[in-house]
Amino acid sequence: MRSVSVVGVGQLPVEKASELSLRQLGGKAVRRAIEDAGVDRVDALFASNMLADEMQGQKHIASLIAEEAKLFGIEALQVRAAMASGAAAIRVAFLSVASGEADVAIAVGAEKMSEGVVTPVLSKALDAKKEVPDGATMISKSAELKRMYLDRYNVPEDGLVNFPVVAHDNARSNPFALFKKAVSPTEVQNSRVIHGPLRLFECSPICDGAAAVILAPSEQARAYNPHPVQILASSVVTDRFRIDDRQDPLQLEAAQRSSHDAYRKANINREDIHLFEVHDAFSIMACLQLEAAGFAESGQGWRLAAEDEISLRGQIPITTMGGLKARGHPIGATGLYQACEIVLQLTGRAGENQVRNAEIGMMQSIGGAASTVLTHIFGV
Amino acid sequence: MRSVSVVGVGQLPVEKASELSLRQLGGKAVRRAIEDAGVDRVDALFASNMLADEMQGQKHIASLIAEEAKLFGIEALQVRAAMASGAAAIRVAFLSVASGEADVAIAVGAEKMSEGVVTPVLSKALDAKKEVPDGATMISKSAELKRMYLDRYNVPEDGLVNFPVVAHDNARSNPFALFKKAVSPTEVQNSRVIHGPLRLFECSPICDGAAAVILAPSEQARAYNPHPVQILASSVVTDRFRIDDRQDPLQLEAAQRSSHDAYRKANINREDIHLFEVHDAFSIMACLQLEAAGFAESGQGWRLAAEDEISLRGQIPITTMGGLKARGHPIGATGLYQACEIVLQLTGRAGENQVRNAEIGMMQSIGGAASTVLTHIFGV
Repeated sequence: MRSVSVVGVGQLPVEKASELSLRQLGGKAVRRAIEDAGVDRVDALFASNMLADEMQGQKHIASLIAEEAKLFGIEALQVRAAMASGAAAIRVAFLSVASGEADVAIAVGAEKMSEGVVTPVLSKALDAKKEVPDGATMISKSAELKRMYLDRYNVPEDGLVNFPVVAHDNARSNPFALFKKAVSPTEVQNSRVIHGPLRLFECSPICDGAAAVILAPSEQARAYNPHPVQILASSVVTDRFRIDDRQDPLQLEAAQRSSHDAYRKANINREDIHLFEVHDAFSIMACLQLEAAGFAESGQGWRLAAEDEISLRGQIPITTMGGLKARGHPIGATGLYQACEIVLQLTGRAGENQVRNAEIGMMQSIGGAASTVLTHIFGV
Repeated sequence: MRSVSVVGVGQLPVEKASELSLRQLGGKAVRRAIEDAGVDRVDALFASNMLADEMQGQKHIASLIAEEAKLFGIEALQVRAAMASGAAAIRVAFLSVASGEADVAIAVGAEKMSEGVVTPVLSKALDAKKEVPDGATMISKSAELKRMYLDRYNVPEDGLVNFPVVAHDNARSNPFALFKKAVSPTEVQNSRVIHGPLRLFECSPICDGAAAVILAPSEQARAYNPHPVQILASSVVTDRFRIDDRQDPLQLEAAQRSSHDAYRKANINREDIHLFEVHDAFSIMACLQLEAAGFAESGQGWRLAAEDEISLRGQIPITTMGGLKARGHPIGATGLYQACEIVLQLTGRAGENQVRNAEIGMMQSIGGAASTVLTHIFGV
C-alpha cells in the first residue's frame, strides 16, 4: 500500500447563509485546494454532502462539483456516512491514492443548510423505522446521553460548559470560523434550554460551508508541496445502529475501537497525539469521545474540560480552530474543515491558534448517534 | 496495486413491491453473497442506494445494512453516483481491496422504489438549478435523445424495438428477473407512449431489489472460491453535467472515454469482450452505449439490435439476464445485479442464458444523463 499525504487544503469561511450555491461552494473550495497544492492535474474527486437531496433537490453532486471546479472528465463519486460524510470522502480519496488508481485525489465537502428546515432531515441519520417514529431526533438523543452522563457520574449541571468556552475562544482568530467571539461559562449555562438538559451553547449551529484537501502519494508529495502532511492512519468502525441496542450507551464503542485501530495503524500511542479535532456537534459527544479515545477514564472526560486541559496549552488541545461549535458544522463539509485545520497546525500555519511543536494530530467524525465513526491520524 | 477478484455473489428476486424492508433487502443480499463465497469474515461494506433519503426517510444506510447482516463493527460507507451508484460501490470496494486496507470487502446495493412516487426524486440526478425548473425529468431527457437519434440518422420509428425484445427474451429464464415473459416487436411498438417518442416498453420498470458481490485479493481468491472472477478494469469518467452543454448530445463522451480507459487498464481490445451488460434504463441509452463503446459507428447501434447481434448468440450479447428493462432496475442495486450476472456468465452458471465460452464480460453504469459513467471489465 502506498503511503498517502495531504499536499493542499482549501477552506471557505463558514457562514450563516452563503450567497454561493452548493455547487459554487464546493467548486471554490476545490480551486483553493488546487491552488494551495500547486497541482496541475487531478485524477479523482470524492465529494461529501449530507443534505442536498432535500435542501437543494440534488442527488448527483460529485459530478456537478467537478464541473464547477472545471475538472472536466475526471472520476467523481459521492461518499456518505451521515454526519461523518466528510471524513468518509477523505477515507475513499485515501484508498484511491493508496491503491495506485489515482496520483492526485481531492476530497471535498460542501453543505448549504440555510435553504430549508434541517432538523427533520438530520434525523434521517437515525433509524427511520425504530427511532424517528417514536419522536427521536439527533438533538433528543444527545440530550438523553447528557442526562445519563450527568446522573451516572454525579457531574455538576455546568460540568460541560468549558467545551463551548474553549471552542469559541479558539474560533476568535480563525478567519474561516462562523462565531469569532468568546463566550463565558455563565453565558453557556444561562443560554436557552433547547431540549433539556441540552442548552443552546452546547449545540453546533446550522450553517453553510465547504472545504477540501488534496492527497498524493507521499513519495511524490514534495514535488507539489515542501511541507506535506502524511496520513498515518485511516479507520472506519460501526457500532450497533441504535443507542438503545448498546450495552452501555455512554461507551462510544465505535469511537473506542476506531481510535485504537488508528493508533495501531499509525504505530503510535495516545500520548503521542498533540491535538485532537473532535466531533463536538454537542458538547456531550466531545466529552464521550475524549473518554473513548483513552484521554480520560469513563465519567472523567468533563474534568479534562473543567480543568482547562483541552485548551491550546492543555494536555490534549481539542477544537483548536473553533470546532463544530464555533467554527461551525456545515455537515458534509465538517470532516474536511477538521482535516484542513490539522494540516495548518502540523505545518505551523495555525497563527494565534498554533499548538506548539504539533507533529501528530487526530480527527474523529461521528455519523448518527455514533453508529459510524471515522478516525484519521496525520503526522509530519 | 493488488489484483482483485469476485469470490461470491448474492441476488434477491426483483419484485414490483417486496415484503422486505430496505435494510432487510440489503442484509439478505449480503448474507447470500457471504454464503456463496464461504468467507468467515468481512472487513468492509460499501453500500449503494439512491432513493432512501426520500422513500424511506433514511440517510445512513451502510451502517444499517451492516447491522442487519450481522456484520457488527466493520467498516461501512455509502457510495453514490446517482443511477450508477451500484457500480460506484463496486469501485470503492475494489479500491479498498486493491489498496490492501481490506482483505474481504462487500459491495451491496438495495433499493425500495415501491414506497412512494419516484419520478420527481429520480429527476434529482439532473441539474436542480438549470434543468429541473424547466420541467426536465430523466424520462423527458431520454425522449429528447431518442427523437434526436431517429431524426439525425433516419432511423425507422420502430428501429429500437429489439432492445426490449431481447431483454425480455433473456429474462424468461432468470429466476431473479421481474418480467419473466417474452414481448414481441409489435407489442413494444404498440405500447403506450410515455413521453413521445418514448414508449412504455422502452423504459425500465419501478421495482424493489438487492444484490451484492464479495471482493478479495486475487492471490487469496481461490482459498474461498475455486472459480473466482478477476476485475480486469474499473473506470469512472464524468462528462459536462448537462446534455445541453455537450458538443454532441448523442455522443456519450463519458461512456466512450470510460470504455477506452477500461480496455487500456484490462489490456484488451473491444473484440475480446464476450458480453456487455449495458445500462438500458431506456433503449436509446443502450443503443448510444454500444456506439460509445465502439461496437457500432455513430448512428448504427440500432442496426446491431435490429440484426439480432445483441442476443445471446449474436456478435455482442447484451442484457443477457434481462437487463434493466426486464430483470428490473431497482436503481441503487442495478450495478450489483449487472456484476452478479457477469460473474454467473463467466463461471458457467448462467443456465439457459449462458453465453458460450464467455471469458471476458463488461458492465457499464450511467449516472444521470451520462454525467457519470462507470465501466468494469471482468475476466476468468
